[in-house]
Amino acid sequence: MNVDGRPLRTIWPAADGWSVEIIDQTRLPHELQTVRIESLEQMAKAISTMQVRGAPLIGVAACYGLALALRRNASEAAIDRAAATLCATRPTAVNLRGRITELREQLLARRAARRVAFAYEFCARITDEEVEIGRRIGEHGLALIEKAAALHRQCPVNVLTHCNAGWLATIDWGTALAPVYRAHLAGIPIHVWVDETRPRNQGYLTAWELGHQGVPHTIVVDNAGGHLMQAGEVDLCVVGTDRTTAAGDVCNKIGTYLKALAAKDNAVPFYVALPSSSVDWSIASGREQIPIERRSDSEVHEVAGLASNGRAASLRLTPAESPAVNYAFDVTPARLVSGLITERGVCEASTEGLLTLFPERRG
Amino acid sequence: MNVDGRPLRTIWPAADGWSVEIIDQTRLPHELQTVRIESLEQMAKAISTMQVRGAPLIGVAACYGLALALRRNASEAAIDRAAATLCATRPTAVNLRGRITELREQLLARRAARRVAFAYEFCARITDEEVEIGRRIGEHGLALIEKAAALHRQCPVNVLTHCNAGWLATIDWGTALAPVYRAHLAGIPIHVWVDETRPRNQGYLTAWELGHQGVPHTIVVDNAGGHLMQAGEVDLCVVGTDRTTAAGDVCNKIGTYLKALAAKDNAVPFYVALPSSSVDWSIASGREQIPIERRSDSEVHEVAGLASNGRAASLRLTPAESPAVNYAFDVTPARLVSGLITERGVCEASTEGLLTLFPERRG
Repeated sequence: MNVDGRPLRTIWPAADGWSVEIIDQTRLPHELQTVRIESLEQMAKAISTMQVRGAPLIGVAACYGLALALRRNASEAAIDRAAATLCATRPTAVNLRGRITELREQLLARRAARRVAFAYEFCARITDEEVEIGRRIGEHGLALIEKAAALHRQCPVNVLTHCNAGWLATIDWGTALAPVYRAHLAGIPIHVWVDETRPRNQGYLTAWELGHQGVPHTIVVDNAGGHLMQAGEVDLCVVGTDRTTAAGDVCNKIGTYLKALAAKDNAVPFYVALPSSSVDWSIASGREQIPIERRSDSEVHEVAGLASNGRAASLRLTPAESPAVNYAFDVTPARLVSGLITERGVCEASTEGLLTLFPERRG
Repeated sequence: MNVDGRPLRTIWPAADGWSVEIIDQTRLPHELQTVRIESLEQMAKAISTMQVRGAPLIGVAACYGLALALRRNASEAAIDRAAATLCATRPTAVNLRGRITELREQLLARRAARRVAFAYEFCARITDEEVEIGRRIGEHGLALIEKAAALHRQCPVNVLTHCNAGWLATIDWGTALAPVYRAHLAGIPIHVWVDETRPRNQGYLTAWELGHQGVPHTIVVDNAGGHLMQAGEVDLCVVGTDRTTAAGDVCNKIGTYLKALAAKDNAVPFYVALPSSSVDWSIASGREQIPIERRSDSEVHEVAGLASNGRAASLRLTPAESPAVNYAFDVTPARLVSGLITERGVCEASTEGLLTLFPERRG
């Protein structure tokens, strides 16, 4: 999507032909800075510190990390070590694991001398795939926004989203925001309520994206969504997901579950947009089978922003002696999800719904 | 309650016999500073900027503001002007209005020369009343915590609270926290999950209070409560309220409704603690009849904390061009409330429940 009129992506191969450039998302929304990644270690750190973040993006980033590792050592043992390092960066993400497993298998089927070139080709291919997936999710989700626009004469259509599932979380387009961008480009008046998404405030990334694309939006604290829905100010919710079970349970950023409850209580449709790579076909129950990543408590105690001198700074928020705990995700049960927006279409959040779109997963 | 072993209240008459001292709650949790208030204007500002906050406390503070105004001019016209100024400071609070109406009526029934002394006596009396109300709420709520402690052998009892309804929101004891303090003093092992409560982070006041009293607690972001309840980590929720309708709808800090939904979905009891002065007997439906205060958007855009040099500082959080909106309260429908903890006992959140405890309100 655009930043100041210029098309930009979240990750791309550098002009030198081997290193990789990323947008450092920890600097956003106050500063747009790119970082050059030259090693496995740098990429693993970029993923764990969330310089790159979002399920689809970290899948691609991890594969580039493996490609960088191979330049040093393309042996099977080195591949396994690098794969383990990358899979450990974010325990909840299923498609990071999926992408790394896929690449590893294809690498092992090739001679060591061919592996580096193949890894880069693989990364370029899945990058194109992810962009196409976002484009299609946008297309299928657009129909839901058109329906909301037709249902009432009030303009604009009000969409609420949590966290960032925009182009910054993918390569381009995004997942939850792809339908929003499509609707905006199609001339449908649309306005997005952006949850700030404590503790890391990824909502500000969403606001930054939307602002640069010219999409009207308003930031609200995570507490506000229930009131907005009660007041009839939300036509539909669309969020992303880090992992979706085969039964349609959705593991997404902490707080998603609360918005889904409010949507249900106020008869607001609650959709989850996802590339099918984030479906974990091996599990059914999100609450029982998905381990919830617990991140550093310092993300709660401290916050980053812009000081009055225009410089990036951070503050201690909490009382000195008080402990905090920081669960990064929660599970929204399928019963609260109106539908899943995938690259193949929209389906019910259920095993049957998913299998209708992905029949190759039957049996 | 105690701060560093020393009993402290939120507001008290100064040694000079006429001015009033308050804890400046905007400096907490990082600095304990008291401020001397000498005029109506200073008190109105202290209330609107939330140097004093919490329904019971601002009722008392407003009456002191009226007493200070009378020292300058004790005429009926001056009383009316001062009352209007004070009632406009926080539109949602019903007991501020109630207390001011009560004091105004009693003042008008007296000669101008007697009014100043009467106003100070009135303030002293309602201060004692509020402390006694907190004590009783604690007593009645203690039974609920004892019940939770008896229900399972897991120690401690885990209570989740939102915002600050502790002694800082009252004069002493608090409302939602009064039962917690009583349980802690009674030796029941108890642990409190403290919602940080964006945008103003009053949860840090709760954490500060609990820490100084020695009550184990953990700060969580507002997004986390749903996950904690799903995971069985919450035995009961107790929150305060700014206004309760005659039908038991509860208007409390924005985000309360989301926690009540999660409590319902996970069969966690959800209690609201309140002095009966915060019941608005004139209205039934919270959603339709309570105007929701919209506070400055800057509370969302900026945040206060402690810089690395130990000084208080604030940061800009949001992207420069993105608008924000800041609704301060939401309404939790009575159907989501397990019970109301009042100074007269615990009742069902319904007209019938309230009238059982307050039969003088019938008809």
